[in-house]
Amino acid sequence: MADQRKIALQYARKNKYKFLSDFKEILAIPSVSTDPAHSADIRRAAEWMAGQLRGLGMQKVKIYPTPKHPIVYGEWLGAVNAPTVLIYGHYDVQPADPLNLWKTGPFDPVVRGEDIFARGASDMKGQNIVMLKAVESLVMTGGLPVNIKWLFEGEEEIGSPNLATFIEHHKGLLACDFAMNPDAGMIGKEYPTITYALRGLAYFELRVYGPSQDLHSGIYGGVVHNPAIALAEIIAGLHDAKGRVTLPGFYNTVKKLKQEERNELARLPIDDEHFLEITGAPVLYGEAGFTANERTGARPTLDVNGMLSGFTGEGSKTIIPAWAMAKISMRLVPEQNPKDVHQQFVSFLEEHASQDIRWELTAMAGSPASISDRNNIGVRAMGKALETIWGTRPYFRREGGSIPVVRDMQNLLGIESVVSGFGLPDDNVHAPNEKMHLPTWFRGIEAVIHFLLNLKP
Amino acid sequence: MADQRKIALQYARKNKYKFLSDFKEILAIPSVSTDPAHSADIRRAAEWMAGQLRGLGMQKVKIYPTPKHPIVYGEWLGAVNAPTVLIYGHYDVQPADPLNLWKTGPFDPVVRGEDIFARGASDMKGQNIVMLKAVESLVMTGGLPVNIKWLFEGEEEIGSPNLATFIEHHKGLLACDFAMNPDAGMIGKEYPTITYALRGLAYFELRVYGPSQDLHSGIYGGVVHNPAIALAEIIAGLHDAKGRVTLPGFYNTVKKLKQEERNELARLPIDDEHFLEITGAPVLYGEAGFTANERTGARPTLDVNGMLSGFTGEGSKTIIPAWAMAKISMRLVPEQNPKDVHQQFVSFLEEHASQDIRWELTAMAGSPASISDRNNIGVRAMGKALETIWGTRPYFRREGGSIPVVRDMQNLLGIESVVSGFGLPDDNVHAPNEKMHLPTWFRGIEAVIHFLLNLKP
Repeated sequence: MADQRKIALQYARKNKYKFLSDFKEILAIPSVSTDPAHSADIRRAAEWMAGQLRGLGMQKVKIYPTPKHPIVYGEWLGAVNAPTVLIYGHYDVQPADPLNLWKTGPFDPVVRGEDIFARGASDMKGQNIVMLKAVESLVMTGGLPVNIKWLFEGEEEIGSPNLATFIEHHKGLLACDFAMNPDAGMIGKEYPTITYALRGLAYFELRVYGPSQDLHSGIYGGVVHNPAIALAEIIAGLHDAKGRVTLPGFYNTVKKLKQEERNELARLPIDDEHFLEITGAPVLYGEAGFTANERTGARPTLDVNGMLSGFTGEGSKTIIPAWAMAKISMRLVPEQNPKDVHQQFVSFLEEHASQDIRWELTAMAGSPASISDRNNIGVRAMGKALETIWGTRPYFRREGGSIPVVRDMQNLLGIESVVSGFGLPDDNVHAPNEKMHLPTWFRGIEAVIHFLLNLKP
Repeated sequence: MADQRKIALQYARKNKYKFLSDFKEILAIPSVSTDPAHSADIRRAAEWMAGQLRGLGMQKVKIYPTPKHPIVYGEWLGAVNAPTVLIYGHYDVQPADPLNLWKTGPFDPVVRGEDIFARGASDMKGQNIVMLKAVESLVMTGGLPVNIKWLFEGEEEIGSPNLATFIEHHKGLLACDFAMNPDAGMIGKEYPTITYALRGLAYFELRVYGPSQDLHSGIYGGVVHNPAIALAEIIAGLHDAKGRVTLPGFYNTVKKLKQEERNELARLPIDDEHFLEITGAPVLYGEAGFTANERTGARPTLDVNGMLSGFTGEGSKTIIPAWAMAKISMRLVPEQNPKDVHQQFVSFLEEHASQDIRWELTAMAGSPASISDRNNIGVRAMGKALETIWGTRPYFRREGGSIPVVRDMQNLLGIESVVSGFGLPDDNVHAPNEKMHLPTWFRGIEAVIHFLLNLKP
């Protein structure tokens, strides 16, 4: 098998330009999922993906309709006694607006320097091609060392409204040992990265009501509790002086970070300077006793996402607003549960909200955090592969945001995901002039060849 | 002169229906100052007022143009050694929308029961007619006992943008002993009211800036101080536990309320029940140690008039907003100054605003409070007149809002105003189905006849 590794890598190198040509083909299809005007393009992109799978000798290749955009499936299960990997991808892309800020057309892929520019180049058509071409390199040089299932959805950029239902209805079809999800990026081009934990989310809308309608602040200023002020008082009480969230019991289940994890997070080449530069904030802020990497990845946080009350136009209007509203959300670590947090928030309000106003708390969205065992076979195989190509042990990142499909697969299929990928922080994802760094992209193909071979029992 | 009093009152009673017919004429002119489509109507209303003055034998009757809507002036100065009263009024009205909520057309005055319904019936065409018809009753029955100057503006409902300049340029023309301003109402129909103090205003926009753009709350939650939270913390700190404003020095110049004034305010037939009913607030709130009447009229207050940050639409968006804004204003008592309050607010922010955000404070509008000497000849004459008609000593009210013209006349002409009027709290001022209570309106005419005769030396 040392032979296949060498031959497969050679195949990949030899076919680099053919791979790039396929990459350009799919980039040219404007599969914008949010825009009904592009539904034929979405369909075309799904057909293209199915065609790739057929070309690789995959079986049961099928385009499954959903209430919105189709899901593409294919499998090859000929590797006896070898693990089965479910490779996840999405073939839809973000809209390209504002168009005038693109240097070249978002669906006219162009190589400039080391980068290819097009919508979806990094998020995530480029990642899909990495997976397809790594598999091709193995299929064409002795065959696949593992069993593979593919799942490509067309709705990721609109929140995957039909994916969980599909997974739930096709548990047998999707059964596997673990999933490979290359939809998360790298910290930098010399820093291969595996994301092993994603924070959960509890999102609320809090409304505070006072007088039955807006009042003249001259005539009534001094007799009612201003709802905007009452809301501000609630919000101001949600953190203590050490930057800790004050909801009763919020930290009860939160596990102490292990020293090993802290060491691993400390290794990340992301420091305070990096956060200052990226955020543009004058000073960093957060829970005392934790580094910025720990706070964003491994500690729960609370933010106000929006706030509205009274008169917000130009100039001045002298009213006491009848109500005030804030969108308030918490990022959760794996031991926390959005439902518990909801109950904690209610308890907090019952205890601390002023008695002279009325409040209403609505839970908007919630999802628990997910964490992967860094010792599972997928993570180990990927870690080794990345180290082979980059010459450095991969960075293990706990990422602040949520990837719902990782959670859904955990909940519905009982499997963990290897969350990785080859996008870079400056790829302009969701922005004009999205790009993929081609040398990194190609290193990705080589790494995935190693990864799949590493999984061979 | 006892004779003229009797005869003038008889004249008024006899001509009630003629007065009402004139009232309906001016109500039918849709002199909406904010709407350019009504500028011809505004002109027509000014002409109508000028015609009334000429009909009363006034001299120097003139329609003075301003950059927007004209000012109507007239005078009669034939009462030797008698005081000169400047009667203020505005002939413009608020827009009538929402039209569908009016039971009858806003400019088709209709009497139903004891009320006449039309836009401007109470605010303040009805008050202007009271003044004109009281003067007519005297002119037609022996002549005026005092000198009178009239000033009718057409821009009150749009904030009187040209009035102060006009006053400043016509100080000689407007010279007088005091002004009569009937643009404030009564506490209730059996409670004749003189408003002797008006709070001032200091209005600010406070902006708090954090990251250079909205950030993903998953990825960056935990490293920056959320500007909406930082703003809430500032706002929450603006009052202490006793409901007092915490700006440094805010109360330094505020005089203690005299027991006599407290007694007078306690006499007002407005209690907590009244404020609860009118505001619809579940519980009243305010500075400890003061009654609701004292808090709204005689104590300074601070309110948030509006607040905006981040995502405020339907649903959830997980961002850390780049900035947050609040409109914050203070109602001031006579000893306070908007400029000092601005400086106090800056000091407060310098001391208390979090160091990890940037803030910007903009002063939007400011005006000092005004207070009248309750012993000046105008107030005494009016008090006596009201008591004659209503059989009860008038209520002296400190009113929470500001009437800029009262302040301007004080500053520019050095005169005080008798602030009174015959509007009732349920007149639907600025709302659909505005009305004037006709028995009260007619009592107003009789009261003003007494008032003018009471001024005779």
